[in-house]
Amino acid sequence: MRIQLDRDRFVETMQTQAEIGGTEDGGLHRLALSDADREVRDWFKEQLHAADLSVRIDEFGNMFGRREGTDPDADAVLVGSHLDSQPYGGIYDGALGVVSALEFIRTLDDEGIETERPVEIVNWTNEEGSRFHPAMQGSGVWAGAHDIEEEYAKTDTDGETFEAELERIGYKGEHPASPQTDYSAYLELHIEQGPYLERDGMDVGIVTGIVGFSWGEITYYGDADHSGPTPMYSRSDALVAATEVIDRIRRIPSDLGDRTVGTTGYIDAKPNSINVIPDEVTFTWDFRDPNDENVEAAVERVREEAKVAAEREGVEWEAEERMRAGSVEFPDRCVGAVERAAEDLGYDGMRLFSGAGHDATHMTEICDTGMVFAVSEDGKSHNESEYTSWDDCYAAANTLANGALELAEPDT
Amino acid sequence: MRIQLDRDRFVETMQTQAEIGGTEDGGLHRLALSDADREVRDWFKEQLHAADLSVRIDEFGNMFGRREGTDPDADAVLVGSHLDSQPYGGIYDGALGVVSALEFIRTLDDEGIETERPVEIVNWTNEEGSRFHPAMQGSGVWAGAHDIEEEYAKTDTDGETFEAELERIGYKGEHPASPQTDYSAYLELHIEQGPYLERDGMDVGIVTGIVGFSWGEITYYGDADHSGPTPMYSRSDALVAATEVIDRIRRIPSDLGDRTVGTTGYIDAKPNSINVIPDEVTFTWDFRDPNDENVEAAVERVREEAKVAAEREGVEWEAEERMRAGSVEFPDRCVGAVERAAEDLGYDGMRLFSGAGHDATHMTEICDTGMVFAVSEDGKSHNESEYTSWDDCYAAANTLANGALELAEPDT
Repeated sequence: MRIQLDRDRFVETMQTQAEIGGTEDGGLHRLALSDADREVRDWFKEQLHAADLSVRIDEFGNMFGRREGTDPDADAVLVGSHLDSQPYGGIYDGALGVVSALEFIRTLDDEGIETERPVEIVNWTNEEGSRFHPAMQGSGVWAGAHDIEEEYAKTDTDGETFEAELERIGYKGEHPASPQTDYSAYLELHIEQGPYLERDGMDVGIVTGIVGFSWGEITYYGDADHSGPTPMYSRSDALVAATEVIDRIRRIPSDLGDRTVGTTGYIDAKPNSINVIPDEVTFTWDFRDPNDENVEAAVERVREEAKVAAEREGVEWEAEERMRAGSVEFPDRCVGAVERAAEDLGYDGMRLFSGAGHDATHMTEICDTGMVFAVSEDGKSHNESEYTSWDDCYAAANTLANGALELAEPDT
Repeated sequence: MRIQLDRDRFVETMQTQAEIGGTEDGGLHRLALSDADREVRDWFKEQLHAADLSVRIDEFGNMFGRREGTDPDADAVLVGSHLDSQPYGGIYDGALGVVSALEFIRTLDDEGIETERPVEIVNWTNEEGSRFHPAMQGSGVWAGAHDIEEEYAKTDTDGETFEAELERIGYKGEHPASPQTDYSAYLELHIEQGPYLERDGMDVGIVTGIVGFSWGEITYYGDADHSGPTPMYSRSDALVAATEVIDRIRRIPSDLGDRTVGTTGYIDAKPNSINVIPDEVTFTWDFRDPNDENVEAAVERVREEAKVAAEREGVEWEAEERMRAGSVEFPDRCVGAVERAAEDLGYDGMRLFSGAGHDATHMTEICDTGMVFAVSEDGKSHNESEYTSWDDCYAAANTLANGALELAEPDT
């Protein structure tokens, strides 16, 4: 049995959510636990009630709506994503997954379909991590990756705590922030945020796993001499050493694999004055690859390069890895369900790894997990020019719905 | 006729000024127009009065003390430097020149020497430029390089204006901030802030001029994509382009001359987040050379490199030169007076260019100008580890005094 979402209603629901925190340039500014987040949560709660779901809000603000199945003992299937956005981000990142989950439930109701397993849909708190660190915070707490008290105490740049802001917007719920039932599977639709689907002319992405990654930080300590009278030969320039390594971070992936990426996103130089040689420069690495060995090799290489640059420039240095996660492969059961759905619906689908982390990352610790990717035009995301055509949104949403429907059957 | 300063009194005067705004680690934190600046100005004014000088404070806070010569029509000789310091800077930068000028006057009095020309000593306002931009602000206004109203309106990071702070500390004087008499010559003693004198075992530096320089800024505009799903081939990374050029700024001098220097002191990356490819990176160049053609060549080269890096990385860019000053050669009259003084006193002296700008830069527009350099241990300055031995301070101060004495003679 295959289902089709109501395209007009689906688009309208997407447009409705996009107005809450919408920006003049057609993007979305809906930071976690902001007034706009409260507003979109109020709207979402209304939709859950309107669909006759039993609503649970947990003590970390994660929002669930449950539709019972025919077998009261069956483990549930969970479908969803997040409604918060990056600062001046796009209207699809996260929200497309939540809206598609909602439209999936509505379509089950429209068609009078009863599933054997219960189906729950979810809006995870603070996936973006731009106001409160880290990203994927709500799903991380819920899945047991983080201690809830530590996360409550996190502050934004204004010094407001997560907990105070969660209470302020009225979404510190009564339910424990942990699985309150057994789950059979989790399925999440998200935009690709990369260029592969568009490049290969695909309608939809069948995600086979999430890349492993390493995040780390290097600091060089040189001498803050005057830029005028200090000859080149006697300098210990922390910024020059840093730029050599940043250049290597750009080049290392080409030696490892065509899916290896390496990025320096952050740099801070001191004293940061035009006529003083920088004496302290901190910068980051971010390496990712579906193959954990490539991530390990990249980290080894960057440490070697950091040492060579330090010796060449005569500066002290330290390097620390801040976070490492192994790659995740989704089980055949979930990948297959998504792939079969795309095929049956006549969509061109392609298997690919996710280059970004998602709430699905934490869910792999709880139950079988899978993901559907929607095409991202030009691979853009995290800014207002993020774009996915309604056709591509709709294709991905139908794929999610039918994949989830298969997973909600008793024999899967 | 050669004179010798009183070494004990000279050292004591240096130590006295160093206590005003002195730091725990033996440095100096005496920002322009701060309370510590007021205190050192009060002390200096007292010394001017005690030496029976006629005191003038101009409307920009520059402080003068005048000792009349025997010829009432003769043009004056001006000697001095600045008493303000960098944040947590050293006790020698600037202050050594002012103290030496004061001890020169005291020694003339001790010895009962009358000069034919009047001698004035000066403390210039805000040479450092770290609280209010630009550096050499007081001498610049006085010499006509800047408009006084524009400089009054400059603000510090707390939003306080220069004029309000000058009034607050009580040093907005009555005299016009411009030359009120004709000047025959200006002589300034300063620490070298570079390694050459120490490296070559010299006692004192005979400064022949000040290097020319170019300050400029380059900005790259790339695409702020997610560091995970964006493959290396499709990136436009503003930071990678910047690092390539910063590396060239480090290397360009080696193709031009052994006194050419090139520095990137400032870098700012946006959005500056570990998992976002930087889309806007601004950084600076600072090239200096005694030969203006080398400065010009360096600027041309950095523009070429900036273009190549932009094309390679696929980013937009703009470059703007913010400031350019030609090199200055001091006249033989002043260089010779300093050199003869060092020789007669038995000091090993070496001719060299100043790699940094000084108040003397602006004075070259007014009258014949010269400088004396004191040895800088390890070439360090602008931090608390700045150090010149009392022997080296004293050698430079005696050289200044005798050079100034020669310049104050009628036939020079």
